[in-house]
Amino acid sequence: MTRTVYLNGDYLPETEARVSIFDRGFVMGDGVYEVTSVLDGKILEFEGHLARLTRSLNELGMENPLSRQEWLDIHHKLVALNDIREGLIYLQVTRGNPGDRDFAYPPKDTPQTVVLFTQNKPGLADNPQARTGLRVVSVPDLRWGRRDIKTVQLLYPSMAKMEAKARGVDDAWLTEDGFVTEGTSNNTYIVKDGKIITRQLSTDILHGITRASLLRYAAEAQMQIEERPFTIAEAQEADEAFLTSASAFVLPVVEIDGAQLGKGTPGPVAARLREIYLEESRKRAL
Amino acid sequence: MTRTVYLNGDYLPETEARVSIFDRGFVMGDGVYEVTSVLDGKILEFEGHLARLTRSLNELGMENPLSRQEWLDIHHKLVALNDIREGLIYLQVTRGNPGDRDFAYPPKDTPQTVVLFTQNKPGLADNPQARTGLRVVSVPDLRWGRRDIKTVQLLYPSMAKMEAKARGVDDAWLTEDGFVTEGTSNNTYIVKDGKIITRQLSTDILHGITRASLLRYAAEAQMQIEERPFTIAEAQEADEAFLTSASAFVLPVVEIDGAQLGKGTPGPVAARLREIYLEESRKRAL
Repeated sequence: MTRTVYLNGDYLPETEARVSIFDRGFVMGDGVYEVTSVLDGKILEFEGHLARLTRSLNELGMENPLSRQEWLDIHHKLVALNDIREGLIYLQVTRGNPGDRDFAYPPKDTPQTVVLFTQNKPGLADNPQARTGLRVVSVPDLRWGRRDIKTVQLLYPSMAKMEAKARGVDDAWLTEDGFVTEGTSNNTYIVKDGKIITRQLSTDILHGITRASLLRYAAEAQMQIEERPFTIAEAQEADEAFLTSASAFVLPVVEIDGAQLGKGTPGPVAARLREIYLEESRKRAL
Repeated sequence: MTRTVYLNGDYLPETEARVSIFDRGFVMGDGVYEVTSVLDGKILEFEGHLARLTRSLNELGMENPLSRQEWLDIHHKLVALNDIREGLIYLQVTRGNPGDRDFAYPPKDTPQTVVLFTQNKPGLADNPQARTGLRVVSVPDLRWGRRDIKTVQLLYPSMAKMEAKARGVDDAWLTEDGFVTEGTSNNTYIVKDGKIITRQLSTDILHGITRASLLRYAAEAQMQIEERPFTIAEAQEADEAFLTSASAFVLPVVEIDGAQLGKGTPGPVAARLREIYLEESRKRAL
């Protein structure tokens, strides 16, 4: 089946959706994005992703080109047109096509480029990795300094994923000044003596929507949370480790740089949090 | 006049040159580029730009999709079709369109995207800024850690240029750990007691083609050169400052963070180097 995608007001076959070679997203990396999960044909965490999108756009001096209702309608229409029960919706906004290339931003009235497309992922919620756990390696975090802005400048995370793959593991954790910042496309956590430890928000990491909800649910479940950086060595000595993202939800990590955590099997805290997260976010889905 | 641009083997009107929304350049910043100057209808520094392009591609695990002769032919054809006497040729290579979005690199046989276009710039060599000099401000260097690879992840340089513009000056110099790395799209230099000081090559800065040639010409002219980092404070106390890039050639800097250098007018070393550079590179143009 050919996907139907959204581009600047039109619903098009995926093979016909093209942007100008002068688009700021193509020549400058000047665009932001969001990825939202779909379960039971409904959108998870819509408000959170919309709020972060608006924040990313604001930080870069861009307007939000659509209203909340317009965004939601496009999401719903793409889910319906592509018959998505479980999957992802990707959206990207760039500073548009000024008709030429220049470091200076185009005039304010240049129409932004807006793209959305779905990815069909049957079995998204029943991920076998939730039962086996992930193995990760650490690599230096060489990304730019504003990781709180969700830009399409994803070459380094892409390179780090390939490095992990080449080393025979599932993903990479990024480190800077001796501490873990986050994963290539996820926030990272360790659990020690029942306490959940995760890096505090700053410009060093993405402000995960799943992270925010998960910490709220964990607090509501009376779990202890400590927001601070941790090292790889500390993570290797932890009782458990896990990661969160919009598409992975909560996934346990069982090996870091070759060191097995505990018994090398997923721990109870990550399992419980995954259960709570899926239950609560399904309840709130739109 | 509508420009004719090159896209994946075709010569097209600029308004018809489009790439897929799944192009790795658009969704991942996974592409590299070069900008080459044209003077007297001839290509400057072709071999240098081709060598750096090949290096950038290699560093990212990409092939060079065309031969030297093919690249040169496209450059010449675009110059002829668009009647460029003075101007720029931009080229970009991305990892292509895998037909969907994934952090993992697409299969090796995915065709790369190759784009080239011209920018007509009459008066490029006779830049009035060579006579007035530039004023710059310093901003923190927040770019990623592999600035030696010339990728299209240019959002931060673009932001820094806008910041400079908002502060009423011409450009920004980027600083890290107390030292100047380079400009937003150029290498930076100071002159003290007749000695030219510029940061040594590393992953911290772009390996400027103009820089390499200029340092060779300067050495041939018996000028003293010291390759090491310098601070903004040292630059403000220098006799002269200047920058180099493929499109600016050599341009004097007369003010840094509000402090005027010397008499606030372009100095003799920058002027002499600009003259030598233009003369030598015109001689070698293809």
